[in-house]
Amino acid sequence: MNINKNYKNLQENYLFAEVSSRVAGYKAAHPEADVISLGIGDVTKPLAPSVVSALKAASDEMASEKGFRGYGPYEGYGFLIDAVRGYYAERGITLGKDEVFVSDGAKNELGSVIDIFDKDNTVLITDPVYPVYLDSNVMSGRKIIYAAASEANNFLPLPDRKVKSDIIYLCSPNNPTGAVYTKEMLGAWVDYANENDAVILYDAAYEAFVTDKSLPRSIYEIDGARTCAIELCSLSKTAGFTGTRCGYTVFPSALKREGVTLGKMWLRNRSTKFNGVSYIIQRAAEAVFTPAGRRESQADISYYLDNARIIMTALSGLNVKYWGGINAPYIWLKCPGGESSWSFFDRLLNGLQIVGTPGSGFGKCGEGYFRLTAFGTRERVAEACQRLKKL
Amino acid sequence: MNINKNYKNLQENYLFAEVSSRVAGYKAAHPEADVISLGIGDVTKPLAPSVVSALKAASDEMASEKGFRGYGPYEGYGFLIDAVRGYYAERGITLGKDEVFVSDGAKNELGSVIDIFDKDNTVLITDPVYPVYLDSNVMSGRKIIYAAASEANNFLPLPDRKVKSDIIYLCSPNNPTGAVYTKEMLGAWVDYANENDAVILYDAAYEAFVTDKSLPRSIYEIDGARTCAIELCSLSKTAGFTGTRCGYTVFPSALKREGVTLGKMWLRNRSTKFNGVSYIIQRAAEAVFTPAGRRESQADISYYLDNARIIMTALSGLNVKYWGGINAPYIWLKCPGGESSWSFFDRLLNGLQIVGTPGSGFGKCGEGYFRLTAFGTRERVAEACQRLKKL
Repeated sequence: MNINKNYKNLQENYLFAEVSSRVAGYKAAHPEADVISLGIGDVTKPLAPSVVSALKAASDEMASEKGFRGYGPYEGYGFLIDAVRGYYAERGITLGKDEVFVSDGAKNELGSVIDIFDKDNTVLITDPVYPVYLDSNVMSGRKIIYAAASEANNFLPLPDRKVKSDIIYLCSPNNPTGAVYTKEMLGAWVDYANENDAVILYDAAYEAFVTDKSLPRSIYEIDGARTCAIELCSLSKTAGFTGTRCGYTVFPSALKREGVTLGKMWLRNRSTKFNGVSYIIQRAAEAVFTPAGRRESQADISYYLDNARIIMTALSGLNVKYWGGINAPYIWLKCPGGESSWSFFDRLLNGLQIVGTPGSGFGKCGEGYFRLTAFGTRERVAEACQRLKKL
Repeated sequence: MNINKNYKNLQENYLFAEVSSRVAGYKAAHPEADVISLGIGDVTKPLAPSVVSALKAASDEMASEKGFRGYGPYEGYGFLIDAVRGYYAERGITLGKDEVFVSDGAKNELGSVIDIFDKDNTVLITDPVYPVYLDSNVMSGRKIIYAAASEANNFLPLPDRKVKSDIIYLCSPNNPTGAVYTKEMLGAWVDYANENDAVILYDAAYEAFVTDKSLPRSIYEIDGARTCAIELCSLSKTAGFTGTRCGYTVFPSALKREGVTLGKMWLRNRSTKFNGVSYIIQRAAEAVFTPAGRRESQADISYYLDNARIIMTALSGLNVKYWGGINAPYIWLKCPGGESSWSFFDRLLNGLQIVGTPGSGFGKCGEGYFRLTAFGTRERVAEACQRLKKL
């Protein structure tokens, strides 16, 4: 018996586990401390009334012999797939019934979907990056190369035609930097992927935060994307589903490699390694796409974006340089005075009892930067901004 | 870009997808037909009252700022882990808090857990077998060898010391044969695994159907199992969670390979590729382990086992040979007159409008056999047994 040796190449701790552990250590030593978390990107607003009604109605259905549902379709229920298709149709994107897969969240899908690709592919990720892209490929032993995001390119790296890659991870609005690709920029990636026979894994988990109507919310707004891109979405941030767990993934039927439709491979994978998302949760997700559900979730997103504005105002007042926060729930700041990310983390935690996320945890290029999230309650965000004045 | 070539080695259709497709074809051609399914192992009893109450109470919690839960622990909530530990403790098995992982079902875990093992390990599966064991290892390109289950060994193959294997799948009570290993027999597998540095993946999804108190319901009832076995459980059949999705997996802390604790590798995997099971669903699962939840789910299990007795009586009347059905929800019958499994499937579907599962779909050794499940409603099971008389 040999274990998967690639695990030895992982950094010891998953970033957020390390953050949690330092916070727990601090709290144990200072039980009286009032710690404010602007760290892990977790929402604070409760589930919307439409969603809760749907959860309870579906629970009641499951209590009756007639309404009870056992195993559902591997790809998800038609009612939810149709709701997702309607959501895309509003933006002029037509998706077929067999192009949408219901998932239990984008993170899970991002970790699992690479199973349909060979181990010998080269993976291109931007740096800094959501750690899941990196770690799941380290686990499978793939070659990983980086596209550097920096102040010089506004944290929006573009493809380098001299570099060959096969699987490309893009996240826009970006976690952690909050940067959003324009249509032209995404077009450059789509062209690169089509020219190089590469596949883009497009993480659109934060699409609902895009307020600037000129910016794309789906990669399928770009010509040519249907032959090169899988789009992974989540209701975690769109509708506060971080603890409820539901998302969806789009495999266009035109997306083929070696003559094989990738969506068919994914269905084969799901029918073997997945038994669908809970019926009750799928009904809750469906409610997100109703007119009332949309209004309610939009109100929560506006609330978080108002938080972002409050944080940005505070940072401006301190002459701290930052990015993001306008079309994204993340504010990416430059640690003052050239301080390192973890040193700034410890200073904020120990000095101001504020938790953020060290930029270096997202990659080498994140060193010297720091991520704050807008997902707190208004009161806590305001309190954090008061404390920041003592920086 | 290369796709995962191993997918080409999969049988074209996942067994149950093929069954569904033939049934759908029949129904389309015969819209008036009253088809009874004793095929896919899906339950029919609604969720128990305690479970539904828990779902609704948790939904209400999620509706308030105070009760709302975002991301949960990767390994599952302590309240559910403790409930599972209590369930094992009743049987004299003590599990630590870090030995239990909450999952969204055994199928998902069985497909994912092999990620912690190297590709070069040899996998041993019994034949016939639950297709997930085979397909998930074909997808990862592992060498697979078989232990034949047959009438000669009562469908309970024992280890062959001349054969070397690294990862061993055992399912008891067995799907599809309904056979259950005795403690002595499981002891032989545990000894083999410990002597060969192998790891047993013990699928205990049907443990709650064991009524014979001398038979083991957990592999940890066997001395030495903690150094060689991972146990995968599910609430799908125990409490009708096929459409609700929750289970749990046990990694004993004594289970190490190459000096590495496998449970720690699994936690690293989960923290990268999983974000926990929905809070609401975990509260529902917790309710299964309360005294009321236990009584309610036990009543459903008794109901299904009564169905099994009715089916067995009908088969006995027809002089059809069968196994299982006493400590398992599956009845494994020999197709009369030496008929092939799929031919018998088509004859039952077309002639009697009864759906079962062809034994050959579970492996070469399943050819000539057929699986019926006891999960129907009493009325439908009785009607199916009436129809069977026309065989």
